[in-house]
Amino acid sequence: MPGITGTTRLFAVLGDPVDQVRAPELLNPLFDRLGRDAVLFPVHATPQHLAGIVRGLCRVGNLDGLLVTVPHKIEICRFADELSHAARISGCANALRREPGGRWLADNFDGAGFVRGLRGRGHDVTGRRVALVGAGGAGAAIAAALLDAGVGHLTIGDLDRARLDHVHTRLDRLWPGRVTCETAPRLDGVQFAVNATPLGLRPEDPLPFEPSALAPDCVVADIIMKPRETRLLRTAAELGHPVHHGNHMLDEQLELYRGFFHLDDAPLTR
Amino acid sequence: MPGITGTTRLFAVLGDPVDQVRAPELLNPLFDRLGRDAVLFPVHATPQHLAGIVRGLCRVGNLDGLLVTVPHKIEICRFADELSHAARISGCANALRREPGGRWLADNFDGAGFVRGLRGRGHDVTGRRVALVGAGGAGAAIAAALLDAGVGHLTIGDLDRARLDHVHTRLDRLWPGRVTCETAPRLDGVQFAVNATPLGLRPEDPLPFEPSALAPDCVVADIIMKPRETRLLRTAAELGHPVHHGNHMLDEQLELYRGFFHLDDAPLTR
Repeated sequence: MPGITGTTRLFAVLGDPVDQVRAPELLNPLFDRLGRDAVLFPVHATPQHLAGIVRGLCRVGNLDGLLVTVPHKIEICRFADELSHAARISGCANALRREPGGRWLADNFDGAGFVRGLRGRGHDVTGRRVALVGAGGAGAAIAAALLDAGVGHLTIGDLDRARLDHVHTRLDRLWPGRVTCETAPRLDGVQFAVNATPLGLRPEDPLPFEPSALAPDCVVADIIMKPRETRLLRTAAELGHPVHHGNHMLDEQLELYRGFFHLDDAPLTR
Repeated sequence: MPGITGTTRLFAVLGDPVDQVRAPELLNPLFDRLGRDAVLFPVHATPQHLAGIVRGLCRVGNLDGLLVTVPHKIEICRFADELSHAARISGCANALRREPGGRWLADNFDGAGFVRGLRGRGHDVTGRRVALVGAGGAGAAIAAALLDAGVGHLTIGDLDRARLDHVHTRLDRLWPGRVTCETAPRLDGVQFAVNATPLGLRPEDPLPFEPSALAPDCVVADIIMKPRETRLLRTAAELGHPVHHGNHMLDEQLELYRGFFHLDDAPLTR
């Protein structure tokens, strides 16, 4: 990577922990390829110190953007001056940029990244029936992106009834009649079944849903990246289902960040 | 430079403006040579936002140190939990590190860097008579370092009587009888004459003192780095004086930062 100088523009990725983030290894080589004098570095921010750290970073004159990961995706919305459509619907954000007037806009690319990932693997969701399990931040963002992409009908499952109702209200207002929410996910007749819960991070986790209940050609997707082969995907593959891995969502977000942060614009003359 | 990952430790250099700072180009290659997983980046902090930015950065879990440049060297002391000897005497700091308990220690390496620079060029100040013009932050730090290094007698000149008295009080307490302060610098009989004012940054600036008043073998030193050949140094050289350039002070500080930030210690196992 070319050297950092006094003119280098800054981007930070915030998390707790932060050791595991992949963004620096993805974004810094992209900055280089695009000839941007910019660097992305990891920022370890505990929940207790998040407010002070974010307020401080947002005042740094040469800092142009923030990426946000676990556990700050919900809390970070408080510090934005403006929320995108996706951030408003999901109630969480994973990217913030400084607008020309100095305001900070928060957006959420989990959903768009997931849908782009599906498309990139040849899976078109237009007009299809989809079951999504998990109505947390990532689940809500993916639900909104799926509906935005033209899914025919979406069933969302989550054991937390209050959370489910909250998500349903927001989605049904924008896409009336196309969303059903149930504490027990309905899997019959769907062409895609998606896990957006954390179940599968640990080997002893139960399955988020039962792949044997799905039609044989139903695509089974997971958003968990580590392990790559979750118990859900292994079980689904053994039953002959096409499977879709978690890494595609993040890989596609890289392209979305490129647009969001205007990385293809001509470098500023300073 | 090896890639930044989630485990990379952070250092920042704060200034307003910050475009001109040399620290990233000096420190980042040093991190690499020493095998440190660390990066130094520039932070543009206006005086209005300094407090928020510093308080935020000091809470970042993986940030280990700050360097500070114009115009924040005095103000930064407010945010330190502890001031070194050099920072207390000069009333300004240019480096802060996080101590093991989480406290922040501020230090000032302008003076020590200057004295090391002189020594590196074969100039020993022990027991010598020195005239120093400029009793601002850099001047005060250099004065303390010169006295600490064993200068026989130091005359400090500055047009600001109040500032001069303030510096004199602090220095005389530690090195009684070895410092004289005058609004008009006394140049007779000195073996070293040092400019620590900003005079010389611009070509139209008057000389900070008159080299023709010096003894022929008196060393004339400037702390101004750009231009390298200030009007003072050019005039002194034409008169046959040995001259000492401004860059040595910063070059030597690199070695001092290396010690201050424990860069030679074994990398942390995480």
